[in-house]
Amino acid sequence: SLDAARLIGRIRTLGEIGRDADGRLVRLAASDTEKLGRDQFVTWVKGAGLDLAVDRIGNIFGIWKPDGVTDDAPLLLGSHIDTVIGAGIYDGCYGVLSGLEVIETLKAEGLTPSRPVVVAAFTNEEGVRYAPDMMGSLVYAGGLDIETALATIGTDGTVLGQELRRIGYAGEHEPGFFRPHAYIELHIEQGPVLEREGIPVAAVEYLQGISWQRVTITGDANHAGTTPISMRRDAGHAAARVITFLRDRARASNTPTVATVGCISFEPNAINVIPSRATFTVDLRDPDEDRLQEEEAALAEFLESISTEEQVGISVERLARFEPVKFDQGIVTLIETAARDRGLACRRMTSGAGHDAQMIARIAPSAMIFVPSIGGISHNPKEYTADEDLIAGANVLLDVVRRLATE
Amino acid sequence: SLDAARLIGRIRTLGEIGRDADGRLVRLAASDTEKLGRDQFVTWVKGAGLDLAVDRIGNIFGIWKPDGVTDDAPLLLGSHIDTVIGAGIYDGCYGVLSGLEVIETLKAEGLTPSRPVVVAAFTNEEGVRYAPDMMGSLVYAGGLDIETALATIGTDGTVLGQELRRIGYAGEHEPGFFRPHAYIELHIEQGPVLEREGIPVAAVEYLQGISWQRVTITGDANHAGTTPISMRRDAGHAAARVITFLRDRARASNTPTVATVGCISFEPNAINVIPSRATFTVDLRDPDEDRLQEEEAALAEFLESISTEEQVGISVERLARFEPVKFDQGIVTLIETAARDRGLACRRMTSGAGHDAQMIARIAPSAMIFVPSIGGISHNPKEYTADEDLIAGANVLLDVVRRLATE
Ligand SMILES: NC(=O)NCCC(=O)O
Ligand SMILES: NC(=O)NCCC(=O)O
Repeated sequence: SLDAARLIGRIRTLGEIGRDADGRLVRLAASDTEKLGRDQFVTWVKGAGLDLAVDRIGNIFGIWKPDGVTDDAPLLLGSHIDTVIGAGIYDGCYGVLSGLEVIETLKAEGLTPSRPVVVAAFTNEEGVRYAPDMMGSLVYAGGLDIETALATIGTDGTVLGQELRRIGYAGEHEPGFFRPHAYIELHIEQGPVLEREGIPVAAVEYLQGISWQRVTITGDANHAGTTPISMRRDAGHAAARVITFLRDRARASNTPTVATVGCISFEPNAINVIPSRATFTVDLRDPDEDRLQEEEAALAEFLESISTEEQVGISVERLARFEPVKFDQGIVTLIETAARDRGLACRRMTSGAGHDAQMIARIAPSAMIFVPSIGGISHNPKEYTADEDLIAGANVLLDVVRRLATE
Repeated sequence: SLDAARLIGRIRTLGEIGRDADGRLVRLAASDTEKLGRDQFVTWVKGAGLDLAVDRIGNIFGIWKPDGVTDDAPLLLGSHIDTVIGAGIYDGCYGVLSGLEVIETLKAEGLTPSRPVVVAAFTNEEGVRYAPDMMGSLVYAGGLDIETALATIGTDGTVLGQELRRIGYAGEHEPGFFRPHAYIELHIEQGPVLEREGIPVAAVEYLQGISWQRVTITGDANHAGTTPISMRRDAGHAAARVITFLRDRARASNTPTVATVGCISFEPNAINVIPSRATFTVDLRDPDEDRLQEEEAALAEFLESISTEEQVGISVERLARFEPVKFDQGIVTLIETAARDRGLACRRMTSGAGHDAQMIARIAPSAMIFVPSIGGISHNPKEYTADEDLIAGANVLLDVVRRLATE
């Protein structure tokens, strides 16, 4: 088994890097604080005696290729170390640091793998600063052109490529410079299922589809006191109608569809001025591609109808669109077996969150391991997984890697 | 009659002071751009040979007190030169510059007034940067303590008193240092009534009540992909429900009640994070005090109900509250007579916007003159009043002042 204290210690150390003045963990992709997180990870990678590689989109790879290993298709482990705003310490970091821990453990054991084993920290998985999410793994898997990705403009007006250069993580390697033999990602569930059912480990066999859009509504600024309700073209009110429409629809359906409006802004954003413009994001998800398309169509139709009813202009920009993914059944079964061999109950499940595994699945057999999130809370400082569960999950990863690295 | 070209020229000159990089007119109270507007006004006041006085809340007074005038209660004219974000050029400035023009005209005529005539530019009428609105005139009228007013924190975190000192307009005079004989404010209507009815002048006899509140809703940040709809405490969605509630209610009623949500922000404001906090402003207005109270009560009740239904925390901060005002019937009649003597159709009306006259009415007989706003558009760069209407309104002011300054 692996060094539990070292793994937990590293998770906590990385979890303190990027706290702002209010105590919130904010390590947005390619920011100053994320640079510090990257530097810490690189230090650990080098300390473990691994080779370091960084590709042009800033993905960091710690490569264990013992002398004599000839197979060029490495077994890949990983996740991400960027965070949302006000994040927990586990999302992403747990998978990256467990991957490193597994490699160090196997190396210390003197195992001779039949192929290299690599741990990756993918760039901009969260998608909060730059859309789409899972950008580093998407580019790596060939799903997004590197030049387009580097030219992405962030919510703060920055350009990703410039930011990567600024923080020193615009690497030389071409994304996709090796094709993995397989990819396994260990992650916290971020949802309530495992805790509710009292099950410590999941073998993730599906990941739901994701649709991100930015909607801009334009009306007319006018005086809040003098403009009769009937004469208003109120962009803010139209936006509020979209938000309640999405919620009412998701609530009324008996499907797992979820819809979220996480960002909003009004212009001119003055107390006595009717908003002339409202901009907001829509995050739609569904495990079923047909249903996700129906939800997108229903939104488009509603936008069409309020554009007439409220006499507002509406434009929609697509920020991300990923179909549901089915993971590799062989690896899923391996995970189940490894868990049961350690006496851990294990269930199969569908991931509600997006993950780098979803992208790497395009180029290699992939699957994920989940451990419970207390209260199903994530993207929140209260995100928590018990140490015992973290260790159990990492040991399942260890066993699966031992198997896949030597097959 | 007055110097039409000079008045229109000054309105246009002041209207160019404070344009930002996007061409928007932004002269928020006590800001750098408003300082430039103030400086320009002071230059004109001095050029007209008036005495200058600035009080502690930054109200600027141009005082015409010819030798031999003994009465201490001046006739007061005025309005404001601060603007909203993306303002038109007429709101406020028209009244201030017309007041100055009227004084210069009477002075040039060699009129001997029986009392001083004073033109005022009141601080922070718009209330966009610092609440409440009409703050300078409110403090002047004794409705708000000067120390409290100076300690007001702005939407940008600044403190009004410090900003007034910084821009050099924290004056020496105690607000209320003279009690006016009467107050007359000339203003654009900012609403659609006069244009629709083809009437060039209104004598404003009522001004509706204003209620401003800031609502903060707190829920739980959580993952947009993994959190079932039934487990969400979504502050953003709860805010959207309040916005649609207010609109639906105002639309369904057959009263002139208006409700506006002009400002909003979400936290953490990330695309894949359920908002943990939503903050927005509510501007409620009604000409009838009882009905305004009913609207406030209905909002409070709705907030109470969604706090339970959506399981969110709700707190409300009062930003401004002014009861409807009835202006002085004697001055209203004088305005009507003056308009008709110039062959101008005139109607009585109720102001939908708040004005400094509403505050000064607490300490002196007051009334307002309105001229048409094309399309009823205000708080918008398209705000427009024809030169002919501007001049007509200013001449009505001139005639009323000639009468009140000599009685
Ligand atoms: N795992 C995770 O939180 N990924 C971020 C992308 C998303 O699912 O919103
Ligand atoms: N006249 C005017 O626009 N005043 C600003 C205060 C308000 O009515 O919102």
